[in-house]
Parts: sequence; C-alpha cells; structure tokens
Amino acid sequence: MRRASTKSQPQRRPGGRSARVRAAVIEALVAELAENGLGDVTMDGVARRAGVNKTTLYRRWGSKEELVLDALLELGERRVPIPDSGSLREDLLIVAREIVASVSTPEADAVVRAAAADPSPDSKLVRAVRAFWQVRFALLGEIVEHAIERGELPAGIDPKPLVEGLLGGIYLRMLVTREPLDDEFVERLAAWLASSR
Amino acid sequence: MRRASTKSQPQRRPGGRSARVRAAVIEALVAELAENGLGDVTMDGVARRAGVNKTTLYRRWGSKEELVLDALLELGERRVPIPDSGSLREDLLIVAREIVASVSTPEADAVVRAAAADPSPDSKLVRAVRAFWQVRFALLGEIVEHAIERGELPAGIDPKPLVEGLLGGIYLRMLVTREPLDDEFVERLAAWLASSR
Repeated sequence: MRRASTKSQPQRRPGGRSARVRAAVIEALVAELAENGLGDVTMDGVARRAGVNKTTLYRRWGSKEELVLDALLELGERRVPIPDSGSLREDLLIVAREIVASVSTPEADAVVRAAAADPSPDSKLVRAVRAFWQVRFALLGEIVEHAIERGELPAGIDPKPLVEGLLGGIYLRMLVTREPLDDEFVERLAAWLASSR
Repeated sequence: MRRASTKSQPQRRPGGRSARVRAAVIEALVAELAENGLGDVTMDGVARRAGVNKTTLYRRWGSKEELVLDALLELGERRVPIPDSGSLREDLLIVAREIVASVSTPEADAVVRAAAADPSPDSKLVRAVRAFWQVRFALLGEIVEHAIERGELPAGIDPKPLVEGLLGGIYLRMLVTREPLDDEFVERLAAWLASSR
C-alpha cells in the first residue's frame, strides 16, 4: 500500500523558530485538553506547559478559542493521511479506523462534546470544528478521486454523501447511541458505503 | 404510497385515564423543553402545564430523567411512521425528512445536545437517547425488509450500516459541521445509501 504523502503531512515542512513555537503550543494545548477538558484549559496553563510567555500566546492567537481553532486546523490536516490501497472499501476502512482513533482521545472527546453542546452555530468553537472538517472533507475527496480513476465510481460523482455517511456513522455512535466504535462496526459501514454506485 | 400503520402509531391505541395522563404529561414535557431547555425543566413546571398533581408525576416516573426516558421511548415509536413507497431510495428519503423535521424542533435540539455533551455513557439521559434509537432502529429495519422482498437488497443483509449512515449523516450536520439539513443533502445521502449492494 502506498500513501499520498506531502499534502497530508504538513508537519514535515521545514520551519523556523515560529513554526517550532506553534508546534510546541499546539502540543501543550492538546495535553491540557486531555487533562482538564476544554472548559478548564487556560492560556496560562498552555503557556507554562509549552515553555513560552503568555504574552507570546496572546500576541499570536488572541484568545483560547483562536488557539483551539488553529490547533484543529493543524490537526485536521495532519492526523489522517490519505490512503491509496487500490480499493475504495479498503481506503475507507483505513480512514475510518484513523478517525475512530483520533476522536477516541480524551482531548478530542472534550472538544467534540463541547462543540456539539453549543446551540449557536457561530461560536468560535463551532466554527473551529467546522473549519477542521472542511479541510478533512477535501482530503477525503481524494479517496473518491482514486476510486473514479480505477473505475470503481462513475466520473463526476459527488463524494460528499459518502464522506458524511462515514463520519456521521462514527459520530452517531460517539455522541448519540454510544455503541462501541469497534472494528466490526467500521468494516460494515465502510463496506456499505463503498458498494454504492 | 401506503404506510404501515399500527406498529408505528401507538398514539392511536385506545387508553383509559392513565393513558390520557401519560399523553398530557409527555406533551407538557415537550412544551417545557422547547421553552426552557433540558436543564431548566422542572417536574413542577411539567405538572402545572399538564394539569396534574406533582405527586402523580413522581409516583409514576420517579424523576425528571425517568420522565424524559419515557417520553423519548414514546416519541421514538410515534414520530416516524415507516413508509413503504415501493423503492428503498424513496423510503429512506421519507424517513430522513421526518427525522430532520423531528430533530429540528427546539425540544429535540435541547435533549440531543445535552446527551451528546455528557461524557458518561451511562447517565440516565444518555441511556434514554440510546433506548429511543433502539426502538427506532427496529422500525427502520422494516424498510430494509421491504427492499429485500422487492429484490433491491440481498436476503439476510444487515440493515445497521444503512441506518447508521443515514442517521449519522443527519446528526453530523446537526452536531458537528452545522451545515444545513436541507432537502438536497437528504436526497443525496438517501440516494447513496440506497444504491449499495
């Protein structure tokens, strides 16, 4: 199995001091989220853990919400490499397993539940989660492009219902039915969606 | 288009005083939820609005959580009649539109977001939402049975990935991406899921 590389792994791009600070701060934010939940994360705590000045944090991100937004965008691009296994079903399964792993972390759990609970569609947190998924939707579209190239799907098909069915099934279990995100579930969901015309 | 009737519309079954009280209390609860959100609904408020004694409420339901559970079970059976249009795609579309309509109400919005926010998989509210969907999953399985009878799907196929993809897509937009639950979205999702083999 080969994997498309550059677009999905921007963490490998070279970076100077500024990029290193951003990486350290995002890593610190994720660790704080895992320990404290979104409501109790503070800019102070993130700055201390990252070993940077709080003023640096505020100058660059303005607020905790901006920092969460930036972290989600970064993680959205980084966490799910786009597989290219030669089969739509297998590609979907690989992505689905990676999404399950990433939403199963305590920090993702905290962010996702806090965003889902927010009735306002325009809060910073909700916009951050939405922006995260816009990036990832584009990446997932590549899987469908590969399937079209192989003749598994007709040219010009809109990949969105496929992507929404896959992500939706995972979030349904996480947020609504609380059934386990086990491999049997992921396999069946990927198989159903991949066998569509 | 004919619709399966009895199983999906228990509100028509004859009932004595006890059934009338239950119906009035559930109606009052739904109205209170729409006005106040789940956190601010009280047994007092529900009793007042339903015109019954608070002691009646506590004797029958024990707590607000038990009442919400009972209401969800009742609404889960009642709200979505199972269509039988002659086509899997059309049946899914009808159900999806009805689910979109029912989750778009303020009372459903309040309950769904409160349950999604709860990290514990065993709270009463989470168990209530889960029980609600267990009932509805069984009802949705009927659509797949009809599709098998018509030869649209192979005998013995597990309907669950289809149902989870459909519900999941809707909840994904509601809780995560906040994209509109418009008819074009619902049509495309139903079409994709119905064309699976």
